[in-house]
Amino acid sequence: MPHITLPDSVPGIRSLVIYRPETGKYLYELVQILLRGESSLHAADRELIAAYVSYLNNCDFCYQSHAAAARCLYEEQQHLVDEVLKDLGSAPVSPKLKALLAIAGKVQKLGKEVKPEDIEKARTAGAGDRDIHDTVLIAATFCMFNRYVDGLATTTPEQLSDYIAMGERMSNIGYVLPNQTT
Amino acid sequence: MPHITLPDSVPGIRSLVIYRPETGKYLYELVQILLRGESSLHAADRELIAAYVSYLNNCDFCYQSHAAAARCLYEEQQHLVDEVLKDLGSAPVSPKLKALLAIAGKVQKLGKEVKPEDIEKARTAGAGDRDIHDTVLIAATFCMFNRYVDGLATTTPEQLSDYIAMGERMSNIGYVLPNQTT
Repeated sequence: MPHITLPDSVPGIRSLVIYRPETGKYLYELVQILLRGESSLHAADRELIAAYVSYLNNCDFCYQSHAAAARCLYEEQQHLVDEVLKDLGSAPVSPKLKALLAIAGKVQKLGKEVKPEDIEKARTAGAGDRDIHDTVLIAATFCMFNRYVDGLATTTPEQLSDYIAMGERMSNIGYVLPNQTT
Repeated sequence: MPHITLPDSVPGIRSLVIYRPETGKYLYELVQILLRGESSLHAADRELIAAYVSYLNNCDFCYQSHAAAARCLYEEQQHLVDEVLKDLGSAPVSPKLKALLAIAGKVQKLGKEVKPEDIEKARTAGAGDRDIHDTVLIAATFCMFNRYVDGLATTTPEQLSDYIAMGERMSNIGYVLPNQTT
């Protein structure tokens, strides 16, 4: 049961942005530009960074919904999502994406955990400033969303089918502020 | 030295929002409404929550600047800021604010650390849904800012006088997106 009174039958972050749209508006605009706006990183890779950080933060709602969105966007490569979540070290992603996910994992712990050698490793694998910037900001942003969603104990659907539907919506229309009826 | 090339002589979050104003815009709008917009919590208390979480996250830039802003806003009660940062348990703040700061400290660890008994303690001390919501979102938001600022190793001024000036600006004009010349 949520720690505060939230709209019935609306899960996770959606219940919170309906509760307080004044802040929800900017949260959705931020995540839309971060995950769908212009970037040097593919949208699928950005969704995977979001899912990976949410998984490390033990936030079921964010992890399952963003993993579902990443699977949709990777299409025939969707197996990569579960391979990264199972074991980043052995996952068959590019050295660049692997180094960026490792940076995201450091950010999940604490900002100062990101060391010059982590950055150097990403640069050697082909990452530029924008790749590194966007990775750090996506990871930091999901450290916020995960805490907001779980800190108020929002409703977390248990059926995998609910997340498949969310992932399809997120990959097709992105992040749009819900209204009271959605 | 920052991990990516950022504007010279601009510290902390300000260098990042100049580097990428498309995301910076929403980050500033979010923090402005959270810390200065309509709320059941005083702006001074909200700045103290921001400073407390940033202190726990070991983010010098955010902790020192928001502590300075909180001191300005508390005016003759500014000693409360350092008493909370030194030891929340013995600090002479109201039971309600103490319970909300304790919730913020749980959010800093992880969302699921906030337990029904933490919420109950805050409610017994007079906190309502909006107090609890705003506390959790402010704490979660600073878990993001702290990681963004430190994860890219932005410049951190060392002089206390720099933070006093920042605190005055933040308490007087709030959070306004800097342009390239500020």
